[in-house]
Amino acid sequence: MEKKLTMDKLVNLCKARGFVFQGSEIYGGFANTWDFGPVGVELKNNIKRAWWKKFVQEDPSTYGVDAAILMNPRVWEASGHVQSFGDPKMDCKNCKTRHRADTIIENFTKGKVSAEGMSNEEMEKFIEEHDIKCPNCGKRDWTPIRKFNPMFTTSRNMVGDEKDVVYLRPETCQGEYVNFLNVQRTMRAKVPFAIAQIGKSFRNEITPGNFLFRTVEFEQMELQMFCKETDGLKIYETYKQKALNFVESLGLKAENLRFHDHDKLAHYAKAACDIQYNFPIGWQELNGIHHRGNWDLSRHSEFSGKTMDYLDPYTNERYIPNVIEYSIGADRLMLAIMSEAYDEETLENGETRVVMHFLPAIAPFKVAILPLQKNLGEKAKEIYGNLSKKFMCDYDEAGSIGKRYRRQDEIGTPFCVTVDFQTLEDNTVTIRDRDTMKQIRLSINELENYIQKAIEF
Amino acid sequence: MEKKLTMDKLVNLCKARGFVFQGSEIYGGFANTWDFGPVGVELKNNIKRAWWKKFVQEDPSTYGVDAAILMNPRVWEASGHVQSFGDPKMDCKNCKTRHRADTIIENFTKGKVSAEGMSNEEMEKFIEEHDIKCPNCGKRDWTPIRKFNPMFTTSRNMVGDEKDVVYLRPETCQGEYVNFLNVQRTMRAKVPFAIAQIGKSFRNEITPGNFLFRTVEFEQMELQMFCKETDGLKIYETYKQKALNFVESLGLKAENLRFHDHDKLAHYAKAACDIQYNFPIGWQELNGIHHRGNWDLSRHSEFSGKTMDYLDPYTNERYIPNVIEYSIGADRLMLAIMSEAYDEETLENGETRVVMHFLPAIAPFKVAILPLQKNLGEKAKEIYGNLSKKFMCDYDEAGSIGKRYRRQDEIGTPFCVTVDFQTLEDNTVTIRDRDTMKQIRLSINELENYIQKAIEF
Repeated sequence: MEKKLTMDKLVNLCKARGFVFQGSEIYGGFANTWDFGPVGVELKNNIKRAWWKKFVQEDPSTYGVDAAILMNPRVWEASGHVQSFGDPKMDCKNCKTRHRADTIIENFTKGKVSAEGMSNEEMEKFIEEHDIKCPNCGKRDWTPIRKFNPMFTTSRNMVGDEKDVVYLRPETCQGEYVNFLNVQRTMRAKVPFAIAQIGKSFRNEITPGNFLFRTVEFEQMELQMFCKETDGLKIYETYKQKALNFVESLGLKAENLRFHDHDKLAHYAKAACDIQYNFPIGWQELNGIHHRGNWDLSRHSEFSGKTMDYLDPYTNERYIPNVIEYSIGADRLMLAIMSEAYDEETLENGETRVVMHFLPAIAPFKVAILPLQKNLGEKAKEIYGNLSKKFMCDYDEAGSIGKRYRRQDEIGTPFCVTVDFQTLEDNTVTIRDRDTMKQIRLSINELENYIQKAIEF
Repeated sequence: MEKKLTMDKLVNLCKARGFVFQGSEIYGGFANTWDFGPVGVELKNNIKRAWWKKFVQEDPSTYGVDAAILMNPRVWEASGHVQSFGDPKMDCKNCKTRHRADTIIENFTKGKVSAEGMSNEEMEKFIEEHDIKCPNCGKRDWTPIRKFNPMFTTSRNMVGDEKDVVYLRPETCQGEYVNFLNVQRTMRAKVPFAIAQIGKSFRNEITPGNFLFRTVEFEQMELQMFCKETDGLKIYETYKQKALNFVESLGLKAENLRFHDHDKLAHYAKAACDIQYNFPIGWQELNGIHHRGNWDLSRHSEFSGKTMDYLDPYTNERYIPNVIEYSIGADRLMLAIMSEAYDEETLENGETRVVMHFLPAIAPFKVAILPLQKNLGEKAKEIYGNLSKKFMCDYDEAGSIGKRYRRQDEIGTPFCVTVDFQTLEDNTVTIRDRDTMKQIRLSINELENYIQKAIEF
């Protein structure tokens, strides 16, 4: 079946309904940055809270942190980012645009050939043999492929005019590694335990794009589980399943999700897989689960001179723990959730309604309060005042009820409460369900419990 | 009365109990950055949620956004930051340390002289006349005062080796100004309305310090209320009161709070005041409320070429709205809240307990589940499993009950639930109140409601 949703449609809906605006839009935008509007900020916050609830709050073996974005530059030497992090870039000499060689190959072959693991020479040869041209100008006039380190650098001005180079973190997980000892000590944590974090990372991507899919500034939700080497693969498999369960629990359909095991691994890694989602742009990585061996803690031990040994209190074994990493992009997950939720339905009267079928727990607004006429506003505002102490509520008194329902459908509000003249008589309202469009009559006193029950997660 | 709490004590408690660690600590730290540990991240998130609830969720005239940290560089030209943002710096030629001239003067005079509004020449003269020496080495051998722009700069690599300068935002509010039109349009917002945001800002401060008080990377919670010029002063006064009510509602005592009206204003400003808090380091700014006239939207209109006019639908007047800004630092508020909550109490047996009297609504953990003996762990974990679906809970089975209570007191957990042998017989537990240390016996089924009621905000 043809997909109803294209990326363009979604971008336009997001812009029109307050989900997402282009960053610095009045200045013509900026470098694939995006600003979350009044509706989008609630959706994104709800997604982040749902993740934190599931992976931190409900899991006694996981501890949260919130580490600084600016870290000691030695961190990025230990992690290998300073020396070997980078994308294969080439410039089109004709039109002066910059491209990632691997992306060019994958787009040309419609994803049938993966450039993952190809050397620069192999990619150059492939591009020549298949006569792959610049997608911008149509000429084939490429520079050689060079590595491009996507870490943003800045500097901390010190005394006089000395400057220290400082990086904007390209990933959040180093914040967990450098705090392994702190968390283990203060929480008296016993291996296996995990450290989790939600925070922003920055990559000076050559070819960002596809809306929220790849941006220069993005938010990661991830955890690092520290474990004994012999438990690594079992825990890795557990997190594959937990990761899948989580995105399904937020409403992503099983048919749009699949595992993608990596063929080629980093030299230290023992296993790696993605969960891919069937985005409007096709199957793409949604999140990753990696078995990283003891690489990370070993490197930080070597570079910092601090021992990262764990002494098992039961067996008296001493070892540097292995790490299982589970990482998902909040922006990318939001994009998947919006894609999945979007629907165009033909109504009985032949009209089309656009509706976002968000899981109520993560819907931006839980309920909209709609006075049938303006002179019912006082009662409606009283209801709004009470409910907004519990939930994000919208209030709308402009236009016909039908139009107001459509607006709420487009931002995925699960419930609309209409205040009418009967309300003044018997303290009841109608409550309309977004998905079924059915209405029932309910006492005002029952509203809070009714909604609370529907949004549990 | 002498203060029980010094900053050193607080820093040590934070480090020992998982509130806050030095950033990149294993590498010797980095530039006054701080990492929030498993306890601190919950406290900080609860503070941010409380602010969002009060100022966004419960206020129908306020709309949230989450704008990108990296903005089009023109934003910072319009705002004036590129041209005239800066602190007066001078270096000690003897010991090669850098200092803010205004801070040096204010510290020397113990706050009796404000350098706000002094010119560089006036400050140099004051320093010479009073023979103010370097606080680091004790010599007076200063360079002239120069302006130092504390914006961190980075660059977005473009084609070839061209680079564009990009700034890390030094304040979040520009994200609201550039989205004024977007929010007004998509939300069909009517003036007066506000746009609110919580997010990180960065300043390359010369002399950061005092723990979380002044850091190079910090999180702001702030809103910009757009209004008609004639309503400006009234709304300004309203926000002064709302801002005060908010911090009091989180437990800051009135006696430790005071308004501080600014004598000297920016040329465009109509009124400005801080709320100061009596920190362990003395009275310092906690948050600011500013009446900014129509400076911000006018400048963005001028620099972007987009009209920022608002057409009043009732009166048909057309004008560029005035802005009332209310801004508070999440890190700084957390510091104030920890300072206020800290207490050392002498118990009947002569021992001292350290306790953090957090408002239950923002306490990091709401309840700790403590099995009296390890063989009661199964029942205790069952209770933990149920309650952790609702609240952040801790679980602790190590050490004597007394020691476990002390640990929870130090992280401010309002309730401790002890599972004992009677629990297995009649499904009751004891629940201990952090502040009174009194215990009552409660059915397990009543726990959730009991705690829920206590943490309402």
